[in-house]
Amino acid sequence: MTDTKITLPEAEIPTHFYNIAPDLPTPLPPPLHPGTRQPIGPADLAPIFPMALIRQEVSVEPAVEIPDEVREIYRLYRPSPVFRARALEAALDTPAHIYYKSEHVSPVGSHKLNTALVQAWANKQEGVKRLATETGAGQWGSALACACRLMGLECMVYMVRVSYDTKPYRRIMIQSYGGQIVPSPSPLTQAGRAILAEHPDSPGSLGIAISEAVEDAAGRDDTKYSLGSVLNHVILHQTIIGQEAKKQMELAGEYPDILIGCHGGGSNFAGLTFPFLEDKLKGRRPALRAIAVEPASCPTLTKGPREYDFGDTAGLTPLLMMHTLGHNFVPPPVHSGGLRYHGSAPLVSHLLAAGMIEAEAYDQRSVFESAVQFARCEGTIPAPESAHAVHAAMRQALLARESGEAKVILFNLSGHGNFDMAAYDAFLSGQMDGGV
Amino acid sequence: MTDTKITLPEAEIPTHFYNIAPDLPTPLPPPLHPGTRQPIGPADLAPIFPMALIRQEVSVEPAVEIPDEVREIYRLYRPSPVFRARALEAALDTPAHIYYKSEHVSPVGSHKLNTALVQAWANKQEGVKRLATETGAGQWGSALACACRLMGLECMVYMVRVSYDTKPYRRIMIQSYGGQIVPSPSPLTQAGRAILAEHPDSPGSLGIAISEAVEDAAGRDDTKYSLGSVLNHVILHQTIIGQEAKKQMELAGEYPDILIGCHGGGSNFAGLTFPFLEDKLKGRRPALRAIAVEPASCPTLTKGPREYDFGDTAGLTPLLMMHTLGHNFVPPPVHSGGLRYHGSAPLVSHLLAAGMIEAEAYDQRSVFESAVQFARCEGTIPAPESAHAVHAAMRQALLARESGEAKVILFNLSGHGNFDMAAYDAFLSGQMDGGV
Repeated sequence: MTDTKITLPEAEIPTHFYNIAPDLPTPLPPPLHPGTRQPIGPADLAPIFPMALIRQEVSVEPAVEIPDEVREIYRLYRPSPVFRARALEAALDTPAHIYYKSEHVSPVGSHKLNTALVQAWANKQEGVKRLATETGAGQWGSALACACRLMGLECMVYMVRVSYDTKPYRRIMIQSYGGQIVPSPSPLTQAGRAILAEHPDSPGSLGIAISEAVEDAAGRDDTKYSLGSVLNHVILHQTIIGQEAKKQMELAGEYPDILIGCHGGGSNFAGLTFPFLEDKLKGRRPALRAIAVEPASCPTLTKGPREYDFGDTAGLTPLLMMHTLGHNFVPPPVHSGGLRYHGSAPLVSHLLAAGMIEAEAYDQRSVFESAVQFARCEGTIPAPESAHAVHAAMRQALLARESGEAKVILFNLSGHGNFDMAAYDAFLSGQMDGGV
Repeated sequence: MTDTKITLPEAEIPTHFYNIAPDLPTPLPPPLHPGTRQPIGPADLAPIFPMALIRQEVSVEPAVEIPDEVREIYRLYRPSPVFRARALEAALDTPAHIYYKSEHVSPVGSHKLNTALVQAWANKQEGVKRLATETGAGQWGSALACACRLMGLECMVYMVRVSYDTKPYRRIMIQSYGGQIVPSPSPLTQAGRAILAEHPDSPGSLGIAISEAVEDAAGRDDTKYSLGSVLNHVILHQTIIGQEAKKQMELAGEYPDILIGCHGGGSNFAGLTFPFLEDKLKGRRPALRAIAVEPASCPTLTKGPREYDFGDTAGLTPLLMMHTLGHNFVPPPVHSGGLRYHGSAPLVSHLLAAGMIEAEAYDQRSVFESAVQFARCEGTIPAPESAHAVHAAMRQALLARESGEAKVILFNLSGHGNFDMAAYDAFLSGQMDGGV
């Protein structure tokens, strides 16, 4: 048999997350208090996050231990395989070696469960009974609903209305796990009511839904808030992806020239790339490239300035130093609901400013064209979000064909498209626009 | 870590399928020609099947080799893990040990890809360019569309109308793989037109769709027919499930007391159980129980007589000796589209008549209640078909609680429910009837 699939034994599930903070070329600018605009401390975050996660958010320890109970549940789907996309390479007639890490194999179909389990566990340790969160396409909401159920917590999900309406199956999945869910903007919160008063037909946005979930958590003693991307501790939890992938590439006898992940809030991109970028930051792999791929309809990294901005629309969250399209930006209702976020992870923004990573943006029709070709070669239908990484990887493979270089490309297949068939239908029937 | 997950190394992907034919207590009654009602020979099947599969259909060799090219693609998802459902055991407070084999991990989400790949490969070897088939819930159609694409064949799918209308995502998945698909009964065939003339609103049935696909294949030189269950060679290919599971249970240090699979045409039930039943047929495990679980709305094994009947509605196929509700039986449109078949595998029917296996039937509301409880304990949402196995396994676990016996139960989780959220919605919102 050829080396198409690279697996790891279960004993190789990492015991610690990799923290990039101590390896950064310059320290991360601190978050600012939304009222005073002064750097915030742990106490400021305590109303909405448990202390264990706040400590992780500001940690400069190089490694953070993974709880045993979380590692035990990781075994449902981890270590996830790395595949060499040989059929795709043949179809593209490229000398490049294309690898992908398979995060779509989790029970909820995406990488989001990696952090959801840690967050639910950490909250449970501190006596929290209920988590409130937002979700775009529904990957995060279903992951948190599943994690809460497995850990014995309740879950409340504010789902961006356009996704709620176009992706009913994600709503039902959340309900199947026993989660509560409402379309956002909702009449349940002040933030939601304010938007509805002005825009009764608002399609919603992640920024609005975050405002609602934060308000929900801040207003109830039994409830904390949970975020599926952007923040340092979320990215920390996703580094399990890149740590496994590093071992797997070693087993394949190769080191990637180019790493690729799609970019919404930054966690799947960072999760795959940070453990490799450690080598670049420490001077061991100066030529390593890492490309964050976003939709042209929401070009945060490629067109947004890097400045302090709110994480949500209502201005309830701390101000983060990040690439942003402005916290009032409402992206068009493209099919990649998970990439419709005005901001970006401060860590990703920081590395982009430092020239350590790159960003690219593509229109959704090109992205789906690549996604369909990938499915027909490799069998798995990618989520629209992950299809951005597929597209950029195929583009690099075609550039390698032109230059005749046997580039090694590794991308993150962060989720499957089983819940996104309406988007594929639009594409296959010629009814999809470019989304720009 | 506990022994929650039992994996096999890739080298343990079986090299041969297990053929139960030589181990049967009495020989299987032969299929009869639909015109002459005399036993048919290989030549009679040649217009619709390739010779390699016809040889497998009648083979009495104890083992049939798996082609290397197929084993290579199996590595996308095989060996599939066996899980011990510890959270479910705790929720049921049962002394039973509940294990499940995870066939839902394939790229198309079910066990159906196991045989689809072999069938596409065998047809390609004999120069066939196109396969025609039917599908109920869409698991089989999407598996064959995927396999055809990976092997370089065209695929034509006749999908039972009620599923076509209620499961648009399966249609789109088939199209994403480049397959052609029409609702059945369709105006494309004589069989379809005859039904439509009498019942313009026919919800369709597997029997009707088979008639259409067989007619399609018989009428075109470049096309053969492909069936996703029932026949001996299909069951042969699914024995890879039970062979792996046997090794995995050995690793767990247990031997099942009770094996459970849902039953539509019989292939996933047989695939899991036959390699274990070899031990019973050879006298090594006389007490081993194997339970086939069907919907009360389509009680083929529990209420249908065993007699010669057509596999399809129009009477185009050979007559098979099987439990049947009659080839004109059109089951109510329950959510388990894949279990809406009037007949059953001759091999399964034969073993039932010999007293070697058992059959049970349950209403769909009870089945979904169990499915939701399973999802909330184990993370994976079962397909409605597989949920029948879940339900029967939970029932046995509760009986074990009553009797205080630490029974070892192994069931087949043949598919996930990602494409069946409308059914879960109906259940969760209280709008599902029992289906009987």
